[in-house]
Amino acid sequence: MLNSNKLRYLFSSDKKLYQSVKNIFGYYPGNIHLYKLALRHKSATTKIVNGVRLNNERLEYLGDAILSAIIADYLFKSFPYENEGFLTEMRSKIVSRVSLNKLSRKLGLQYLIRSGDPSAKAKSAGGDAFEALIGALYLDKGYNFTSKILIHRIINIHFDIELLIESEISYKSKLNEWGQKEKRNVIFKVEEEIGEKHKKQYLVAVEIDDKIISRSQDYSIKGAENLAAEKAWTKLEEEI
Amino acid sequence: MLNSNKLRYLFSSDKKLYQSVKNIFGYYPGNIHLYKLALRHKSATTKIVNGVRLNNERLEYLGDAILSAIIADYLFKSFPYENEGFLTEMRSKIVSRVSLNKLSRKLGLQYLIRSGDPSAKAKSAGGDAFEALIGALYLDKGYNFTSKILIHRIINIHFDIELLIESEISYKSKLNEWGQKEKRNVIFKVEEEIGEKHKKQYLVAVEIDDKIISRSQDYSIKGAENLAAEKAWTKLEEEI
Repeated sequence: MLNSNKLRYLFSSDKKLYQSVKNIFGYYPGNIHLYKLALRHKSATTKIVNGVRLNNERLEYLGDAILSAIIADYLFKSFPYENEGFLTEMRSKIVSRVSLNKLSRKLGLQYLIRSGDPSAKAKSAGGDAFEALIGALYLDKGYNFTSKILIHRIINIHFDIELLIESEISYKSKLNEWGQKEKRNVIFKVEEEIGEKHKKQYLVAVEIDDKIISRSQDYSIKGAENLAAEKAWTKLEEEI
Repeated sequence: MLNSNKLRYLFSSDKKLYQSVKNIFGYYPGNIHLYKLALRHKSATTKIVNGVRLNNERLEYLGDAILSAIIADYLFKSFPYENEGFLTEMRSKIVSRVSLNKLSRKLGLQYLIRSGDPSAKAKSAGGDAFEALIGALYLDKGYNFTSKILIHRIINIHFDIELLIESEISYKSKLNEWGQKEKRNVIFKVEEEIGEKHKKQYLVAVEIDDKIISRSQDYSIKGAENLAAEKAWTKLEEEI
């Protein structure tokens, strides 16, 4: 005999979403409402309940933290002989906006996100929705399950860790090579040291012909330079 | 009959540490070596093994992430009718350096930390060690156990959430009131907007008589102002 949950599923307009979650993460969701909320971009907010906007921002806040913790653990155990500076840098590469937006496109989240602003899909709505989905998964199934899914279905499949380690230098050198070829003056400037001693971050700007193109911060100058270079590179690619 | 673990415990020079962990967190540790490492400040690094400095920096990196995730979850569930801006601000109040240093003094971590630099104990070594202990606890007992301990033995006992909500305005107004009384010119300046759209942070400086006293960043101008005001206030208190 079919129970009411199964009936609800079979005749539900959410059937597509059940299937999508299964395709992406490898399991059927328990509470489908969490996943629906995770895919609702703030531009598609239709209701405000007791002062809370019904969109994915709260879940994104939660998912962002859970994602960081799981990746921190994963890297801690994967690299027993690396210092915390390396681990911090590697994590920021994995969870950077650029990286999560790319991931969300690979996962096809653009077809699932509800958005009231057509341009939002092209911006960081994808990465945000991915984080919100992690928040939903965590509330639905708990930390250990989320960790297993994230590592086996996402990190191991969609990230090339060896490549990420190398990518440390590649954007900065890419940008410098481009500057030499195009006779443009590319400069990296440390503008600011932010935060307290042990957690100090560096704010680095990329200037091309004396015009600031991008800024980024990180726990090392090298890391910040590279993140800023990556941003600048993305901008240049868009312009070309 | 005593088993070897128990024997090791009873005759161990780590007996004091076993008891301290029990006193602080309410349980006896499994792998005592993790906790010992968590209490070793970088100034007391005596060995480098395969390039890794044997001190609490790696554990601090891990614990920082786990702490953030658990607090994010706790606030998410405690405040179902607050938007993510509020949750983000509340979390940064709980896990700020100032707050964790205070907590570590309450817990008496200064008596347990091994440090090669006497001044380190007065600085942020306490907060760092607390984060590293959370990393040790997580590796020793897992996420769910860590979450339970952290909420029941630390948050519920050592933090007054209602007071924290109110503290939002108190440092800024404290500083302004002091300025009026002392005829000093206190100014808050937004110097920089850092990061990408949806995760934008504001860098705010506190100036007293045109001299920059402190800087802080946060996801809202209000939050950054308050953190910067708190830092400035701490400095003023030290000077008096």
